[in-house]
Amino acid sequence: MLIVMKPEASDAQVEEVLKIIRDLGFKPHPMPGATRTAIGITGNQGAIDPAHFEMLSGVAEAIRVSKPYKLVGRDLKQDDTVVRVGDVEIGGSEPAIIAGPCAVETYDQTMAIAEIVASCGVKLFRGGAFKPRTSPYAFQGLGEEGLKILAEARDRFGLSIVTEVLDTETADLVEEYADVMQVGARNMQNFSLLRRVGQARKPVMLKRGMSATLDELLLAAEYIMAEGNYNVILCERGVRTFADHTRNTLDLSIVPAVQNRSHLPIIVDPSHGTGKRHKVIPLARAAVAAGADGIMVEVHNHPEQALSDGPQALLPDMFKQLVAEVHAIHKVIAEAEARLG
Amino acid sequence: MLIVMKPEASDAQVEEVLKIIRDLGFKPHPMPGATRTAIGITGNQGAIDPAHFEMLSGVAEAIRVSKPYKLVGRDLKQDDTVVRVGDVEIGGSEPAIIAGPCAVETYDQTMAIAEIVASCGVKLFRGGAFKPRTSPYAFQGLGEEGLKILAEARDRFGLSIVTEVLDTETADLVEEYADVMQVGARNMQNFSLLRRVGQARKPVMLKRGMSATLDELLLAAEYIMAEGNYNVILCERGVRTFADHTRNTLDLSIVPAVQNRSHLPIIVDPSHGTGKRHKVIPLARAAVAAGADGIMVEVHNHPEQALSDGPQALLPDMFKQLVAEVHAIHKVIAEAEARLG
Amino acid sequence: MLIVMKPEASDAQVEEVLKIIRDLGFKPHPMPGATRTAIGITGNQGAIDPAHFEMLSGVAEAIRVSKPYKLVGRDLKQDDTVVRVGDVEIGGSEPAIIAGPCAVETYDQTMAIAEIVASCGVKLFRGGAFKPRTSPYAFQGLGEEGLKILAEARDRFGLSIVTEVLDTETADLVEEYADVMQVGARNMQNFSLLRRVGQARKPVMLKRGMSATLDELLLAAEYIMAEGNYNVILCERGVRTFADHTRNTLDLSIVPAVQNRSHLPIIVDPSHGTGKRHKVIPLARAAVAAGADGIMVEVHNHPEQALSDGPQALLPDMFKQLVAEVHAIHKVIAEAEARLG
Amino acid sequence: MLIVMKPEASDAQVEEVLKIIRDLGFKPHPMPGATRTAIGITGNQGAIDPAHFEMLSGVAEAIRVSKPYKLVGRDLKQDDTVVRVGDVEIGGSEPAIIAGPCAVETYDQTMAIAEIVASCGVKLFRGGAFKPRTSPYAFQGLGEEGLKILAEARDRFGLSIVTEVLDTETADLVEEYADVMQVGARNMQNFSLLRRVGQARKPVMLKRGMSATLDELLLAAEYIMAEGNYNVILCERGVRTFADHTRNTLDLSIVPAVQNRSHLPIIVDPSHGTGKRHKVIPLARAAVAAGADGIMVEVHNHPEQALSDGPQALLPDMFKQLVAEVHAIHKVIAEAEARLG
Repeated sequence: MLIVMKPEASDAQVEEVLKIIRDLGFKPHPMPGATRTAIGITGNQGAIDPAHFEMLSGVAEAIRVSKPYKLVGRDLKQDDTVVRVGDVEIGGSEPAIIAGPCAVETYDQTMAIAEIVASCGVKLFRGGAFKPRTSPYAFQGLGEEGLKILAEARDRFGLSIVTEVLDTETADLVEEYADVMQVGARNMQNFSLLRRVGQARKPVMLKRGMSATLDELLLAAEYIMAEGNYNVILCERGVRTFADHTRNTLDLSIVPAVQNRSHLPIIVDPSHGTGKRHKVIPLARAAVAAGADGIMVEVHNHPEQALSDGPQALLPDMFKQLVAEVHAIHKVIAEAEARLG
Repeated sequence: MLIVMKPEASDAQVEEVLKIIRDLGFKPHPMPGATRTAIGITGNQGAIDPAHFEMLSGVAEAIRVSKPYKLVGRDLKQDDTVVRVGDVEIGGSEPAIIAGPCAVETYDQTMAIAEIVASCGVKLFRGGAFKPRTSPYAFQGLGEEGLKILAEARDRFGLSIVTEVLDTETADLVEEYADVMQVGARNMQNFSLLRRVGQARKPVMLKRGMSATLDELLLAAEYIMAEGNYNVILCERGVRTFADHTRNTLDLSIVPAVQNRSHLPIIVDPSHGTGKRHKVIPLARAAVAAGADGIMVEVHNHPEQALSDGPQALLPDMFKQLVAEVHAIHKVIAEAEARLG
Repeated sequence: MLIVMKPEASDAQVEEVLKIIRDLGFKPHPMPGATRTAIGITGNQGAIDPAHFEMLSGVAEAIRVSKPYKLVGRDLKQDDTVVRVGDVEIGGSEPAIIAGPCAVETYDQTMAIAEIVASCGVKLFRGGAFKPRTSPYAFQGLGEEGLKILAEARDRFGLSIVTEVLDTETADLVEEYADVMQVGARNMQNFSLLRRVGQARKPVMLKRGMSATLDELLLAAEYIMAEGNYNVILCERGVRTFADHTRNTLDLSIVPAVQNRSHLPIIVDPSHGTGKRHKVIPLARAAVAAGADGIMVEVHNHPEQALSDGPQALLPDMFKQLVAEVHAIHKVIAEAEARLG
Repeated sequence: MLIVMKPEASDAQVEEVLKIIRDLGFKPHPMPGATRTAIGITGNQGAIDPAHFEMLSGVAEAIRVSKPYKLVGRDLKQDDTVVRVGDVEIGGSEPAIIAGPCAVETYDQTMAIAEIVASCGVKLFRGGAFKPRTSPYAFQGLGEEGLKILAEARDRFGLSIVTEVLDTETADLVEEYADVMQVGARNMQNFSLLRRVGQARKPVMLKRGMSATLDELLLAAEYIMAEGNYNVILCERGVRTFADHTRNTLDLSIVPAVQNRSHLPIIVDPSHGTGKRHKVIPLARAAVAAGADGIMVEVHNHPEQALSDGPQALLPDMFKQLVAEVHAIHKVIAEAEARLG
């Protein structure tokens, strides 16, 4: 914490602030400047709320310095976390690909898409059985029936299942069937749900909220880790901005930013970020080039019949091509990184 | 729905789109223009997803026309909804004032603040027993103990209690003690929680999410009403923008926008929107002047000791003054509206 | 400036940073903490770019402390600046009202509206002769012809003229005819234009850019003041956000924020912020309640025929009513402030 | 244009709207629906302002359908525009690389960096002689002296020069020395400057404004093309959002969006978008993978001494490596596109 006094602050006001800092058990470091005094604070264990100091007489501003998270940070753990799902590593040396329909709609649709996904050598299969929908009148998913279909796709095609957990009520069910429990963007700060998946024995994929800062994303992951579940995968899926040419603005700069501060792997979902198929492929390529640990895309055999989010789903041929490109782009990057040392 | 064909779309492509619309049971209205053809669609009961048409060959764009909500809209109910809490009307002829501490911290603090609030003639008392906190290490509220303290404040000072419900697990408890159940901004799209409060017999105050559009806010209210609870109060509390001089940007323009589209009352919480006390009073005044049905503010007897959000809490004298101003400003507006007829 | 070292920074890295600070002629203040060292810097005259330090080995972050502006700040001048235009004071004890058409369209239209404005006791008349338009094919204003019409309205009705200066080429013309030269939002960082109006002998109204931070707005004003023109009026007119129910999101919280940091007056233009007439009146009232030093609104006798921005223009009766309300609301606020002392 | 009537609109109100449309010389297409009537409009040459209809009695909403630009759009010209600068093609089959210092600081610095850039096989050299700076007290560039240094770098190393034009006053000078005239983000809607560069005989690189929509960017390009200069290169450089982990949020989704609507080439500047070197390389790679027609990056031999924007400049070794990666990634994409056909 750094406290900046107003230029006109009196010596008595500075003294009062120093006293309050000492009373809190911290150590103040006054730095008189040409026009104003600043006061550094050390000795605090966690983050202090700057606002507590901004109310004091003579204080112009209080600036937070320490980061409020612990378990997710590189300060505590320098090595990258690798999350293992079946025989796939997320955060390892190869980019992970997660693919499947937005929602599980029917048995036949799911098996058809699972077959396509598996035939491309992809092992992680996504599909929603419980769907968060903006309108109460929209299709809400098949529920447990959907989970059972996913489980059968797993058995038949040797896939691992990534599926969303919407609430604590259905968390037991989802934990039973899923290999990775996905927490959606709207639930990124549903703290009860974060605690619940923190107690689960399955890895968690945590999507960034629509207007979540990097710190908020990392603190949401901290909620999960604080309960004992260290297998957390972060996921960028686009944020809310003024821009109106896409549904959300995919923020690829968060990939290196996360990698700088946290050991957790981060993947990118360009399907929801862009909302349209012709933008999904360029942005999936870009995500891998930006260094993401993987991508999650929607694939559909008949996207024009999809009950949700059809227009952003890739056709089977496009997907097959994309898988090859992801590996080719990753190879370019990996070789470059190796050369740079 | 309006479908805009590409300039180069062939007659066959136009015909195909017309056929698909008819197959869906709707009525197409083709409008050939100088450079391109547009096709209106009527006969649909609810909103259709534009994306379904944007995938078709020759289609440039599909534009949604119908609004996706029903129960919250003025189309269905033209008269303003008035929510009664004790003998206070929210959405009636007088602006409602809700005040109290951010969090219930101790018995003594709560009683002291309740006394101040009641002494100003204010009947709605706020205070959080369950607190959503960005960090898992921050104070999370007193839980049921806090609800009991609130209940005692109600009995002692004749107040009605507005308090947040964080999850479905604790919803029964909150419903038992609260007079108004508040759903926070982070939970605006926690659909399980929305359905649960939709089944409650208590009014619900629904806060706008940090990056929620007007339609999303109204659809969240629709979730609640669709379960049978028609006593919904909307609340603007600031949204996420690039601006860095406040914690959030209070969007007062949503007040007339909501009033134009919906019959539900809308109040404004300037405490969380601005994050600093010296901005709370100007923006509370502004909210009333903008026509809000009420305001919710934080009051604290010792804000410098508050465990959460102290710096935005009003001191007792400031609050007393603000109550008088709210009524004076409202009177100016009401007389003006009466003159304009 | 405060430099935060990484937890793993070596003593040699800390020493190196201290040396660099000293070499730059500044004084370093090292503060060793439990997990990391922070280093305060004093002795710098202006702001230093934090990025220069963030490149050094072992540095986690560099945080700016000093504000980069001087002339606009309260540090230098504590008393409010009052800008006098004719016999109107902007920033004085009464809220200023500026009204007129968006664009000067014809002689008759301008005189008709000027008459309405003057008949309401309003002395500041706005109207664009040079119009910035997003499309090159839209009406661009009457140019000098428009300025002459404005000048005649001034003479005939005893008004002062507020009109936009679009570029340095036409600045001489605008300076000749205008009483206040308005710099539009799109030109807030057109530094050549800022310098030019800084050399003018007329007051300048500077509109906040569509995504300008408070610091950027104040620094744009600093450009004007640095050239010697101290009569600067700031103007909030709405910013770009994700919200889609208004054209821009009016950010009234900037009013107290400006007043906290700067002595310059700030007014609010709710017409461009909201884009629709039924939102203009509530937000004009709100601006005054938030403590703005005035408002600028569009008035039109035949808004349905207006060549630009008709739908946001107030009808004469609405405007007359609004003038009365502005004064009534201001009176409530002023009395409250007087009581609070 | 599509006009949506309110559900309660009377037949007379619908008739009145139809009449007004006909009076404007357009053709109305009424479409009575179950709950409301919509009216399509054809026969208009350009875009009509929806707001003009939204004021009419009984109208709920007016929705724009036609795009407001012409020359920049694919409707008019389907083939990609290729801008030739020296023997480099921007928008052709290879990604263009533009590199150099942020600002021309000294003769020696410029020559040293030009040599590095040329030695990597890069032909387009950037460097600012006129710098837009947020603060009036920051380094503003060397002016004509800087242009002369750039010209010498061109002659000595066979480079083409990309440099910013800040205002119409210095446009003649810049046009004389530059091979590509760059219009900065802050000037994207400086319409006088756009017209001036539209009259220039040199290609123009137009940077997206900090909060510009896709339509606004394309309309700014339309201003330039409407004056006769068809050699326009668009440039994404990051937009303003709530996200605080980068200076701006690089919006790579605009690359496919521009390519869908316009024939103009688009490049990406990841240096200004991210503000930090360790994010520049991942995002430069990502830009190429997203299909951008090129990238613009800052290179500096001694970034720690740079007078502006040093921390985002690449070191020579990093840059050399990046050039190789750009070509390798582009090859992957190009081959994939060829296979997809």
